[in-house]
Amino acid sequence: MDTINPAERLDLVAELFDEGMAFDKVIGLKVDRYDPTGAQLSFRGKPELIGNPIHKILHGGVIATALDVAGAAVTFAAALARMPAMPESELREKLARMSTIDLRVDYLRPGRGDVFTVTSHIIRTGSKVAVARMELHNEDGTHIAFGTGTYMVG
Amino acid sequence: MDTINPAERLDLVAELFDEGMAFDKVIGLKVDRYDPTGAQLSFRGKPELIGNPIHKILHGGVIATALDVAGAAVTFAAALARMPAMPESELREKLARMSTIDLRVDYLRPGRGDVFTVTSHIIRTGSKVAVARMELHNEDGTHIAFGTGTYMVG
Amino acid sequence: MDTINPAERLDLVAELFDEGMAFDKVIGLKVDRYDPTGAQLSFRGKPELIGNPIHKILHGGVIATALDVAGAAVTFAAALARMPAMPESELREKLARMSTIDLRVDYLRPGRGDVFTVTSHIIRTGSKVAVARMELHNEDGTHIAFGTGTYMVG
Amino acid sequence: MDTINPAERLDLVAELFDEGMAFDKVIGLKVDRYDPTGAQLSFRGKPELIGNPIHKILHGGVIATALDVAGAAVTFAAALARMPAMPESELREKLARMSTIDLRVDYLRPGRGDVFTVTSHIIRTGSKVAVARMELHNEDGTHIAFGTGTYMVG
Repeated sequence: MDTINPAERLDLVAELFDEGMAFDKVIGLKVDRYDPTGAQLSFRGKPELIGNPIHKILHGGVIATALDVAGAAVTFAAALARMPAMPESELREKLARMSTIDLRVDYLRPGRGDVFTVTSHIIRTGSKVAVARMELHNEDGTHIAFGTGTYMVG
Repeated sequence: MDTINPAERLDLVAELFDEGMAFDKVIGLKVDRYDPTGAQLSFRGKPELIGNPIHKILHGGVIATALDVAGAAVTFAAALARMPAMPESELREKLARMSTIDLRVDYLRPGRGDVFTVTSHIIRTGSKVAVARMELHNEDGTHIAFGTGTYMVG
Repeated sequence: MDTINPAERLDLVAELFDEGMAFDKVIGLKVDRYDPTGAQLSFRGKPELIGNPIHKILHGGVIATALDVAGAAVTFAAALARMPAMPESELREKLARMSTIDLRVDYLRPGRGDVFTVTSHIIRTGSKVAVARMELHNEDGTHIAFGTGTYMVG
Repeated sequence: MDTINPAERLDLVAELFDEGMAFDKVIGLKVDRYDPTGAQLSFRGKPELIGNPIHKILHGGVIATALDVAGAAVTFAAALARMPAMPESELREKLARMSTIDLRVDYLRPGRGDVFTVTSHIIRTGSKVAVARMELHNEDGTHIAFGTGTYMVG
């Protein structure tokens, strides 16, 4: 009955994050790699993403967005991977109901740079709720922000 | 020496939030009103702000951005209002150094609607650090998200 | 089959919070009143609860404890109230599995006073996860701390 | 004028955390080691610290307390180490004014064990505000909780 294998399940999440979310495209977020244990996304600095016109640094909302998406990518992928066999349409429905419950962002240093990379890993896993930690760095390895997100996954 | 009065100080903040932040314009955030005790901003729903393509709801990052800006607006305005007389250039410099330390967002209900309003008020005030609470509602009064932000203001 | 009525269900929660939790007794937490929409607990200041020996103020951990318990009380009570008829033993088991997922505490003012009151209400409700907001005041009405807690309830 | 050297400054913090805080003694928190870059504290499980009478696990408030103290220890020590020469009485006054601004706790697994160890390190440093991350493990290395704390240090 389940016509898609685990790798294809991951593709469903990649499709959602790469193509489906309009606001991810505004920011220019690209999924570099991810699997049920971790994800990495990146985006390029550009004028529309600036929050502080004097210091030319990323808007805090851009940072929050990137962290939230990275946490969702890994927790949603892990949840899909754990589900029993079911038709793709049912998997898509389940994916569509997954959402962020709460998010904490710690802003550590000004968001300066040309290419920003956000990584995530799961710290609490479960059939209903999962928690991820996320980090944002620039191309020099400067650590710009930490995030912690709690996600509804079942 | 201080050539600007309290109302003009508020205008500095309004200018920063209405005109200065490129990413605020991407979202379409408008300052409706604010003073040192509270702020209200609003924005219209539009296709670029969608996070869930199936349910057509706001991206969590859009919500985080709106909450962060509303918290910054009220805490920055309150901090400027408390400062002693100083030249406008010095005030602008101080404003440019204010920033978010950390932000928590609680997502309560799906972000459906045409017009979204975000309000904020101060819960902890100080010469260095201030904390604000924020709420996001749609045009029907549905409460979509809560936020709590800690800001460096001196 | 379900031999206990809604009021008796609430008594299960009251019993857990008043009698069952050893650490609540260390702090001296008493349930003043609660129902599925809100809870109020209180405790008296005493030397063991001091965190800052110079200023004689409550330890931040005491405040976090009181806020967490108040949030758990209201979310657990609301979740029990929504459950279908089932034997008391099953209800007790479900209650024993409810737990805090995450907690944020905002410390607003020094914890000075003789009697501290903590109130809570639900801001997000669901069959699996609920979110509550909590406040701590002293006998003069001074607002000492805010809390936000996310709880696993099903 | 400053009659105490850096090592003695650290002793001031150790004294505060080991002897000064009444509530730390209730929990039985001992400072194992700390310096301006990291701290480790530990405490033994005992009946008074239980939060869930059925599962015999630590109260969430005990976990929050241990995480908060570990974060305060490292951020206060780092802040004292950076201060210019000043009389000990002035240093003590500054230490007494340091406090937690906000705390987030992520509860990952049930708090089972005999000996619990909490570690902390600084993720954001500054002359006014510092942010630390903390972890709680039991004697088997099971990771029980994460914490993030924002502290006023100047």
